[in-house]
Parts: sequence; C-alpha cells; structure tokens
Amino acid sequence: MDQNLTLQLLALKEEFEDYKEYTSKNIDSFFLCTMALIIFLMQCGFAFLEAGAVRSKNTTNIIFKNVLDSLFALVCYWTCGWGLAYGPGEGFLEHLFGQSEFFLVGTNDYTKFFFQYVFAATAATIVAGAVAERCEIVAYIVYCCSISAVVYPILTHWGWHESGWMAQGFWISDQEKTEYLDFAGSGVVHLCGGTISFIAAYIMGPRIGRFPDDSGEVSGEIKGHSVPFASLGGFILMFGFLAFNGGSTGSITAPGIGKIVSRAMVNTMLSGTMAAFTCLIVHYKMKGKLTLLFTINACLAGMVSAFAVHAGGGSWGLFAACLVSHKGICYAVSNAITGHGWQWLPVAQLFWQIVCAFAIITWSFATMVPVFLLLKKYGKLRVP
Amino acid sequence: MDQNLTLQLLALKEEFEDYKEYTSKNIDSFFLCTMALIIFLMQCGFAFLEAGAVRSKNTTNIIFKNVLDSLFALVCYWTCGWGLAYGPGEGFLEHLFGQSEFFLVGTNDYTKFFFQYVFAATAATIVAGAVAERCEIVAYIVYCCSISAVVYPILTHWGWHESGWMAQGFWISDQEKTEYLDFAGSGVVHLCGGTISFIAAYIMGPRIGRFPDDSGEVSGEIKGHSVPFASLGGFILMFGFLAFNGGSTGSITAPGIGKIVSRAMVNTMLSGTMAAFTCLIVHYKMKGKLTLLFTINACLAGMVSAFAVHAGGGSWGLFAACLVSHKGICYAVSNAITGHGWQWLPVAQLFWQIVCAFAIITWSFATMVPVFLLLKKYGKLRVP
Amino acid sequence: MDQNLTLQLLALKEEFEDYKEYTSKNIDSFFLCTMALIIFLMQCGFAFLEAGAVRSKNTTNIIFKNVLDSLFALVCYWTCGWGLAYGPGEGFLEHLFGQSEFFLVGTNDYTKFFFQYVFAATAATIVAGAVAERCEIVAYIVYCCSISAVVYPILTHWGWHESGWMAQGFWISDQEKTEYLDFAGSGVVHLCGGTISFIAAYIMGPRIGRFPDDSGEVSGEIKGHSVPFASLGGFILMFGFLAFNGGSTGSITAPGIGKIVSRAMVNTMLSGTMAAFTCLIVHYKMKGKLTLLFTINACLAGMVSAFAVHAGGGSWGLFAACLVSHKGICYAVSNAITGHGWQWLPVAQLFWQIVCAFAIITWSFATMVPVFLLLKKYGKLRVP
Repeated sequence: MDQNLTLQLLALKEEFEDYKEYTSKNIDSFFLCTMALIIFLMQCGFAFLEAGAVRSKNTTNIIFKNVLDSLFALVCYWTCGWGLAYGPGEGFLEHLFGQSEFFLVGTNDYTKFFFQYVFAATAATIVAGAVAERCEIVAYIVYCCSISAVVYPILTHWGWHESGWMAQGFWISDQEKTEYLDFAGSGVVHLCGGTISFIAAYIMGPRIGRFPDDSGEVSGEIKGHSVPFASLGGFILMFGFLAFNGGSTGSITAPGIGKIVSRAMVNTMLSGTMAAFTCLIVHYKMKGKLTLLFTINACLAGMVSAFAVHAGGGSWGLFAACLVSHKGICYAVSNAITGHGWQWLPVAQLFWQIVCAFAIITWSFATMVPVFLLLKKYGKLRVP
Repeated sequence: MDQNLTLQLLALKEEFEDYKEYTSKNIDSFFLCTMALIIFLMQCGFAFLEAGAVRSKNTTNIIFKNVLDSLFALVCYWTCGWGLAYGPGEGFLEHLFGQSEFFLVGTNDYTKFFFQYVFAATAATIVAGAVAERCEIVAYIVYCCSISAVVYPILTHWGWHESGWMAQGFWISDQEKTEYLDFAGSGVVHLCGGTISFIAAYIMGPRIGRFPDDSGEVSGEIKGHSVPFASLGGFILMFGFLAFNGGSTGSITAPGIGKIVSRAMVNTMLSGTMAAFTCLIVHYKMKGKLTLLFTINACLAGMVSAFAVHAGGGSWGLFAACLVSHKGICYAVSNAITGHGWQWLPVAQLFWQIVCAFAIITWSFATMVPVFLLLKKYGKLRVP
Repeated sequence: MDQNLTLQLLALKEEFEDYKEYTSKNIDSFFLCTMALIIFLMQCGFAFLEAGAVRSKNTTNIIFKNVLDSLFALVCYWTCGWGLAYGPGEGFLEHLFGQSEFFLVGTNDYTKFFFQYVFAATAATIVAGAVAERCEIVAYIVYCCSISAVVYPILTHWGWHESGWMAQGFWISDQEKTEYLDFAGSGVVHLCGGTISFIAAYIMGPRIGRFPDDSGEVSGEIKGHSVPFASLGGFILMFGFLAFNGGSTGSITAPGIGKIVSRAMVNTMLSGTMAAFTCLIVHYKMKGKLTLLFTINACLAGMVSAFAVHAGGGSWGLFAACLVSHKGICYAVSNAITGHGWQWLPVAQLFWQIVCAFAIITWSFATMVPVFLLLKKYGKLRVP
C-alpha cells in the first residue's frame, strides 16, 4: 500500500514536471510568435515613416525597398545567418561563429528562428532610412543581404549565444565574472545598425540640394511629402517597439518574468515620451514652432530606435546598464561611501561593455566599408 | 517512510501552488500587455478616423494632436494619475482617491499600470473628435492633461479600486450588497468621455460654416477629405475595441474566464454590426444613398465608442447591465410573476447605477467646465 | 494516516487535472482570440490592397464593400452559418450539415465561433478582389451573404467537423483510415474562394478597357492608383496570413504544438518569399523592370492567398500534403525502394484528397452559378 502510494506520488510528480515543460515551451512559442508578428509589422512602419519623410517622387521606390528588405533578409538569414548565429559548432571557432543548421537543417527551435529573423530584418532595415532617396536598388539589396547573412548574425553569436566570446566575458575572481549586458539589442541591433548607417551616409554623401553648395547659396530643408504616411509609420513603429523591447526577454514562463516584460514596455513608453518632449521643447525654443515629424522621430529615438540616433542610442543603452543598474557603478560608489567596501565587478563590467561596443563598431566597419566601396567603384551606389 | 511520503507530498503541493501563482501572473502579464499593445494602436485609429473626417487643411493638425495626446497622457498618468487611481491610501479619503505610488515609486504592478494607461489615453482621446478643427493646441494639451492626470483617475478609483465608494456599494440586507457594474468602462471611460465632449463642444461652439448663419443661408454639410484614411482608422479602431472589451476582464487565468473574453469579443462585434445596419437602413430610407463614413461611425458607436455617441452609449451600458443581465430587473420581474417571490437587489442595483452615472456626470462637469471656461477667457480655446 | 495520505494525494491529483483543464481552455481562448483579432485586421488589408490596385474613382467603393463584407459576414455566420457548420445534428444528415445552435443559441464555444467567423469573412472577402471595379453593391452583398451563410459553412462542416463526410474518410483496412488533410484551410477557404472568384469573373466579364476590343485596338494595362495603399494592404495581409496559418492549429496547449505554430509561421514566410522572388525574376526577364505591386501579390500568393492564385494555391496545398509530408507518397515510394514494403495508405489518401477537392469545386459551382446568373438576369450584377 505504502509502496503503491510512493509510486503514485512519483507518477504525479513526473506528470507535473512533464506538464510544466511542454506548457512552458508552448506558452513561450505563443509569446515569441505574437511579439515577432508585431515586430514584423515594423517593416510596414519603417516603410511608411520613410515614405512620408521623402519627396513624393521617391515614395514607391522606398516602399519597394522595404518590401524587398523583408524578403531578402529572410532568405539570407535562412540560408546562412541563422547557422552563423546559433548553429552548434566546436573548437575555438565556436567562440566566433556558429557552424551548422544552415537552411534550418536539423533545427528544432523554429520559434527562436522566427523571432531572430524579425530582429535581423530590423537591423537591415535601419540603414534604409540613412540612405533614403539616393541609393540604387542593387546597392540596397547587396548591403541588406550582407547585413542579414553575415554581419548581424556573427554579432548576435558573439553577444547572445552562450559560447560567443562577448557573452562569455572574463573571470575577475573565482566567483565573479563579467557578462555582456545587451537588453533588447542595444548593441547588436542598434549600435551595429547605427554604425553601418553612418558608413553608408558618409560614403554616399548627402542628397543633392540638402546642404549649401559651393556657390554659397543656402538651400532649403527638404520637406517630407506626407505627414499622414509618416505618422502612420510612426504609430506602427511605436506599437512595434513596445513588442520589440517587451519580447526581448525571450520567454514569458520563468518566475517573475511577466513583470519584467511589462516593465520593459512601460520604460520604452516613458523613454520615448521623454525624448519627444525634450525635442519638442528644444525645437520650440529654437524655431518657435512645433513639428510633428520631429516629435515622432524623437519619440522613436527615445525608444532607442530612429535612424540618426541608432548609434548614439545604442551605445548609451550599452553603458547605462553598467552605470545605473543594480550591479552598476553608481551602486558600487554608494556602497563604498557607506562603508560596504569597494567592488571591482562593476568596473570590470563597464570595461567589458566598452570592449564589446568597440568590437561591434570595428566589425561593422571592417565588413561594410569594403562592401560600400566596391558598390561605389562599380557605380552602383548612387542614383544619378 | 510514511513521514517521508508526507513531506514529499507537501513539497509537491507547495511546488504546485508556487507554479500556479507565478504562471498565472506571467500569463496575465502577457495577456494584458498584448491587449494593451493593441489598445495603444487605437491612438493611431483615432488619429486617422479624425484625419479622414476633417477638411484637408486640418489633417496634420489633428494627427499632431493625437500624437501629443498619447505622450502627455503618459506623463500625466505616470506622475499623478496612477497614484490617484490605485495608490494605497488610508482613512476616509481612501474612498475618494489614492494617495501614493506617484511616479510609480513603490509600484509592483507594471502590467496593470500599462493597461490602465492605455485606457486613460483613450479617455483623453475621445474628446479630440468632439473639438476637431477648431481647438487650439494649447487648449488641447491643457484639457488632455486634466483628464489623464485627475478627472479620469479619480473616477477609476471610485469605480474600479476595491475601496472606491462606487465599487463598495451599500448593503441592502445582511447578505445582499449592490456593486458597481462597469464592464469595459461603460461608465468611467465612455460616459466620462462623452460628457466632457459635450461640455467642450458646447463651450466652443460649432465649426464656422457648419450650421446656417443668421442670414438664413443654409450651408452645406462639411465633408471629410479622405475616405481611405477614415476607414483605415475605423478598421484599426474595430481591431482595438475588440481588444479593449476582451481585455477588460483584466485576467485570463481564473477558471472559465477564457470564455468570457471571447464572448465579450463576439458581443462587441455583434453590437457594432447591428448598430451599423440600423444606421445604414435609416440613412438609406432618409437620403436614398449609402455612406461609408456614417456606417463606420455607427459600427464604432455600436462597439460603445464613437464620438457623438459616447455619452449615450456609455449610459446605456451602465443600465443595460441592471436590466437584462442574470441578476437584472427583467429577471426579477419574471421571477415574481412565476411565483418565486420579489427581490429587492436588482432595484437597489439599478438605483446604485443611476447614482453612479449621476456622480460621473457631475464630476466631469465640476472639473472640466472651469478648465474650458478659463481657456476661453484667456483666448486659448478657439482657433481664430 | 495512510488513508489520509491517499486522500490528500487524490485531492492533489484532482486539483491538478482541474487546473490543467481550465488553464488549457483559457490559454487556447487567449491564443485563438489574439490570432482572430489579427486575422480580422486582414479585412483592412484586403480593403487597402484592392483600393490601391484599382483606379482612383473606385477607391471609396471598394473600401465600402470590404467594410460591409465584415458586417454582413458576421450576421450571416451568426444567424445561419455557425449552425450549419458546427451545430450538433443527428441521423444521416449529420454528415452533410449541422442542425442547431443558430443565432448561437445553446453554444458554449464562443472562442471557436469568433475564430471561425473571421475565417468565413476571409473566404467571402477573397472574391471581392476578383470582381473589383465592376460589381454592383447589391450583387456584392448577395453573393457575400450566400458564401458566409451557406456555401462556406457547409464546406467546413464536411471537412472540419468530426462527423462531416470528408473528415470521416474511409477505412482501407481494419487499422488504416484516410483523413482529410486541410491545414490552414487550403481547401475550404482558398479552393472554395478561388473557384467562386473564377465563376464571378467569368460570368461578369472583364473590366471595360482591360482587354483589346473588336476593333483590334490594344488597350493599355489598367494601373493601380496608389502604391502606398496597396503596399499598406500587403503588409497587413502578410501580418494576417502569419496569424492565419499559425492559428490554424486551433490550440496552443497540446504537447509540442508551440513548435508546430512557429514552424507554420516560418514556412508561411518562406513560401511567400520564394514566390515573390520567382515572380520578381520572371517579370524582370520578361519586361526588364521590377514592379512592387506584382511582388507583393506574388508574396501573398505564396502564402496561399492572393486573388488570382487562390484556386491554384488552394489545390496545391491540398495535394502537397499527400505528396511530401511524413505519411505522403514520396515517403511511401522511398520506403518501398529501400525494401520496407509498399503501403496503400498514401495512395488512398491522395485519392481522397482528389475526391474532396472535386467535391469542393462542384459544390461551389452548384451553389454560386445560380446566384450569379440570377443577379445577371435582374441586371444587378454589373456596374453600367
């Protein structure tokens, strides 16, 4: 009888463990797929934000690019990117890039693939805003594929795969170890996207008529042609960024994680709002008027996003975590002052974040400068 | 051995309780955040419905207002509103307003904050439609902040916080107690929004050219300039209202609640459809033609929403619950007739709903009339 | 003591079973409602894809139709369709159509109703694209109601209700039985929609000016008037199709189903992309230019969707499952070759799919040809 009870108890325990496991997998799939769906819609948001912000003649062109973007990014990430980012590997090279699961062969985790794909597509899309109205479609396709097939996946391997060198960090003592803090892709998505945007914009040069020419004549600002389109895009992007940042936990089933998700969303909203207000006030003081497009862009930048601010927003995100978070430097300083002893971990952590940021920028330069220079050489870069 | 089994059983029980608790929190966070995301997109829906329904020259203006709306509402609700609505308080005043957690200090429930914020933003936005094309932007910001910082939060405290005076109701016998029935914010969102819209529209006066002037000349109807924009807004609002009403359960983990959520969505869809058909037929009989914008507005009104109908739709929602629900008056009458004895509870309940509706209207008048009058006095209300 | 333990264990077991049951119901409701919400937004996607693809003068008209569509489909599906599809019945007729739960009387499963309604509305909407710019609104309402009230529900009863004749299949031996494979509605949604589109387009004739007239003069292609609208629609439809196909599992709580959902989404994306590329390349080779609208339509077609390709895409979906899936013919052949013996089941299965496809086409013809002919006879079909 007693024996019997023990067996029943064990059976129940096992059933419970089983239930927990498959349920958490299902709910995580549901969560990530839903967030990925909404993040995917950001492609539409980018298309319209840019379509509204360019001159009327370029509308179709820029929307076309954004559609192609989503498609090429999928093919590149499927054939090559996913394998380089998350395919299991071996030996020393494992710290540098993944080595299997190309074309999704042997993959089990479709949910993660879908979620990571929409991130990769976003990283590629970010650059589109920087080259608006002056990049040939062939050039666009080439750099978009480079980013989603190689540049971005390898960065995510470094930072987000357990055996990546950034993620591994280094031991500063027997118990303490730095890690790579990159919530919602501050580094690998935004800093990378921002750096490449800078390279692209620099090599390409400004739009004709954007800045005063040699004759000293001051040209007017180039105005967007459609406020409704731009704001439609802006709203969709806000919708998307909330999901982007909320979904970045990658799970909804660990104890207490629901709160982190909602806090991420609240913080996203608050940062966006603060940035929008700052710009609104500064702009009003300087020019004496309120501008809608500027406000929307500032808000998106505050959500760590809009084009010109990707690099700045991204690097701040990387460092802020070391400065003001629970294990951050401010905390360490206040601890030291109140006599709890000085800790080296936060300093090592900050050092590590700087190293990582530097690596991201170097990698982006090293891979993308040749691509853009080649495109320029063959005359494919610039719309005549 | 027996001892051991008992311990194991207890451990399993505890683990199970633990699991239930954190899982239901996570899933509720997931549910509320997803619904809140979709409800947030309603800001885009309102912007486009209104942008399409006004004259072309006012498009940018009205979209700008809707963007600012979302931002100001967040700041106001964060600094002040949430604390007044859900911050714990003490003493008699606790029945009137919350007294802590301003700036979210000490809050644990970010999920609820995010969800309640999107409701507050919706309440503030509702009024925008009523003052379209004639309100200065400063006036817009002032009343929008008043609503989301003070007027709306205090109403939600009354009706939705456990210690609010409306929510507490009164005892009609030792066992029976009235409660405040307000599914999906019929009262605190729509009746409040509707009342303020009325005040605003009354103090402001109609658009120039909207109604015949003194010379007796009959002016034409003011037509919206873009049917596609208005219907884009309409579609997004339908999308949003389904989430608004479905999400109003505030949870998805209690036994049987999934069914309530889906029934709320089905009913929302059915009410909207019925309203649309009624208007379609009446309008066709009267004018001999079918109009798209009118149909969309009727549909949204049926979902308890569109501008002109907020007050009407809201109060009907408050009373319908007393009349036709399971514990309603119709039920009591039929019970009495069939000899099951008369019950006082439904009557007391209806009385309570009337008191609450009256309180909502009075509060909205008492707070917002001074605001609008002040704005008028300083000449900030009306676009010249 | 021992007795007591047994009782406690039983109680815990029961509580656990109870928990599993209501939790899975809740989560499924949440999953289906969320997906249904997104699928509902496809109505907006169709409206804008079509609005952008027609000439400017027809914009309002086509959006109006899509709004009416959603409304009429709900009324028809509520009054009649749901009962015919899923209302319990008895006797032989039960294999042909449902016989109760009209007006949702006695229904318990609102979640399924809502989800099935958005499918029905999609089926009705599909045809709208085929008759764009030349169908009178009365005709549109009539055929839309026919589809959502009778034609489509009976097909779903055949294929998706456990007692439908298609779903029952036939026994080829004591253990083996064919079933009807119809993931994501390849047959009942897309093949049906495609067939009806063909009938409609055939009876109606092409748009005036679309093809060369008798005088032999070659008229130009009719160009869409708004690329942004069409691509907005396209993006929303991609968003929607991912949910449509992901949500087609109908559940998210069975063990391992999360993976199926995400795989469905990944495959949807991949098929769409491949189709888009194929068309992009073919079109570029033939005409020497890249076209946005064409690419979007191809992408949607690849997701088994866009108008001209519904019938083709639908039937391929029905057969592909027999050919390349785990239990498919390719598998059987390779098994036979490698000496594992020949299996008849895959052949019987393919035969059954052909029978079902044939039945779907016949049923669509038998019901809809009379409707369109009647409309034509009374001169209600064609815009003058």
